[in-house]
Amino acid sequence: STGSRKPKPPPVSHYNLNNVTVTANPLENRENILILTPMARFYQGYWDNLLRLSYPHELITLGFILPKTTEGNTATTALQKQIARTQKSGQEKDRFKSIIILRQDFDPPIQSQDESERHKMKNQKIRRAGMAKARNSLLFSTLGPATSWVLWVDADVVETPPTLIQDLARHNQPVITPNCYQRYWNPETKEMDERAYDFNNWQDSPTAQDLAKQMDPDDILLEGYGEMATYRTLMAYLYKEDGLLHEEIPLDGVGGATLLVKADVHRDGAMFPPFSFYHLIETEGFAKMAKRLGWQPIGLPNYKVYHYNE
Amino acid sequence: STGSRKPKPPPVSHYNLNNVTVTANPLENRENILILTPMARFYQGYWDNLLRLSYPHELITLGFILPKTTEGNTATTALQKQIARTQKSGQEKDRFKSIIILRQDFDPPIQSQDESERHKMKNQKIRRAGMAKARNSLLFSTLGPATSWVLWVDADVVETPPTLIQDLARHNQPVITPNCYQRYWNPETKEMDERAYDFNNWQDSPTAQDLAKQMDPDDILLEGYGEMATYRTLMAYLYKEDGLLHEEIPLDGVGGATLLVKADVHRDGAMFPPFSFYHLIETEGFAKMAKRLGWQPIGLPNYKVYHYNE
Ligand SMILES: Nc1nc2c(ncn2[C@@H]2O[C@H](COP(=O)(O)OP(=O)(O)O)[C@@H](O)[C@H]2O)c(=O)[nH]1
Ligand SMILES: Nc1nc2c(ncn2[C@@H]2O[C@H](COP(=O)(O)OP(=O)(O)O)[C@@H](O)[C@H]2O)c(=O)[nH]1
Ligand SMILES: [Mn+2]
Ligand SMILES: [Mn+2]
Repeated sequence: STGSRKPKPPPVSHYNLNNVTVTANPLENRENILILTPMARFYQGYWDNLLRLSYPHELITLGFILPKTTEGNTATTALQKQIARTQKSGQEKDRFKSIIILRQDFDPPIQSQDESERHKMKNQKIRRAGMAKARNSLLFSTLGPATSWVLWVDADVVETPPTLIQDLARHNQPVITPNCYQRYWNPETKEMDERAYDFNNWQDSPTAQDLAKQMDPDDILLEGYGEMATYRTLMAYLYKEDGLLHEEIPLDGVGGATLLVKADVHRDGAMFPPFSFYHLIETEGFAKMAKRLGWQPIGLPNYKVYHYNE
Repeated sequence: STGSRKPKPPPVSHYNLNNVTVTANPLENRENILILTPMARFYQGYWDNLLRLSYPHELITLGFILPKTTEGNTATTALQKQIARTQKSGQEKDRFKSIIILRQDFDPPIQSQDESERHKMKNQKIRRAGMAKARNSLLFSTLGPATSWVLWVDADVVETPPTLIQDLARHNQPVITPNCYQRYWNPETKEMDERAYDFNNWQDSPTAQDLAKQMDPDDILLEGYGEMATYRTLMAYLYKEDGLLHEEIPLDGVGGATLLVKADVHRDGAMFPPFSFYHLIETEGFAKMAKRLGWQPIGLPNYKVYHYNE
């Protein structure tokens, strides 16, 4: 240093992981939430829904990872515009504690983001491995010692109850996911209707186990494909209109559309395997890994959130 | 807010992971290094060695995790005393960029840290699973978006060349480890001598593969135990006095005593499995996971670092 003033000593932080609480009442305990979103496209509905979350925004850090494609660049610009509006000129209560935007330094494996192309079975393994790496990059780069919970929300989840965080956290479960549906125009009834969307929330079946046993170590099981009938119990179909909103079921596979995870589950090492892990990959592999670490994932079949309809 | 002045908008950080370089010349490119140490005991030799590292300290962040045991409390006190000395009253060039100290919020599985107790085979799986969780907690909580390299250094590594970081990085390898030796008093020659210490750096063998095939899925292979001869090639025994200092060999298992990892390897998802992963655990499981992700670990048989002798 050139000046004569003694420079400030560099920071030393001491965190007692025991003192970072993770409770059924995070709001009262002022627990920090990290909301993580891998984002290939920007949807205004996603941002508007985020703004409506009633959990104190000053306790929420947002983390994004976007691919370095033309589409990813467009999404980044749109996202940054909304962030500037909220953080700089918006109402104070809307502002989030901090926001981290990462640009992915690897090529997304499939260029087209069209739903039909995305969901082709042969594209799935490579696509989901890429998604898993994006999630891991985001997670490893943003999780801090003071984070209590990680909420995964996909960029195309456009409608949740504003009390989402409080509602999920009150179950005090290590890994918990609502049921992801989709609104659509029903041409038969000529009315808006809704249908099951996310088939990655499931309970295992003997058929799937048998299929897995016959597979090569690197092969993966996929859900929602006729050519690979697993007979797993899909949470998407367990929704009951007259069921209890907070009914819980144990899950063996989870999706990432909306997923609340105690930060300690990730800290133990639970990540999104970008390779076949017990013949599972990405979020489904994460559920298996959480289980291997002693954490049982839980689903709420009657608590709904909504996916964008392309 | 109560005042009339408009509060500063909360921070928004934009990181382009592509712009965080990871090169053979980190010093010239001013790359950030995160040094991570799980610490059950504090050794003055460890700290003194850290201070002697010639890589610019203003580019180094230190991260520690210590168990909440009596021994862990003692180590924390000793560590904090040295940190205060270095960061507050030491020479400016000695000061590190920042330091994070975590206290572990789970019980270490084995209370005694005596070498004989620690190394008993039946204690190994539970002990190494605990170590793996400690490493993961530390890694997930401290790795940031601007980190280029992670250097793992055990708390009982008391002697390395001061140019350790530059020397390892110049290989430009995803995962690289020197050979970990131990100085001791040789009663026969009545002189100080040295011997191989870390047996977790190895190349796989057909015998070990066969052993693995016959094991229960949850069982793990361990190195350095007569009752489980693996016939793996141990890097510890490949040291050649007249060999090239920078000779490289590929490894299938690594130890964590001194291990330089490109941050992207961790970001892809490579962590320390606290469960049987291909019958491997902790740092050895990490090597396998790195390989599954396409990253080949490398060892330097003729480049030595030294472990404390209890
Ligand atoms: N960073 C990143 N995000 C992606 C990529 N592909 C998809 N996403 C995002 O990941 C989430 C899940 O992907 P999506 O295609 O919606 O999966 P689906 O709903 O199961 O078909 C969404 O938030 C996408 O915007 C990618 O290559 N990189
Ligand atoms: N945080 C934490 N660190 C530990 C624990 N047990 C050992 N360590 C540290 O982890 C590293 C490796 O452990 P050590 O017992 O030296 O392994 P060994 O040299 O292979 O016998 C050292 O830095 C220890 O101080 C633990 O339970 N918690
Ligand atoms: Mn989607
Ligand atoms: Mn040791």
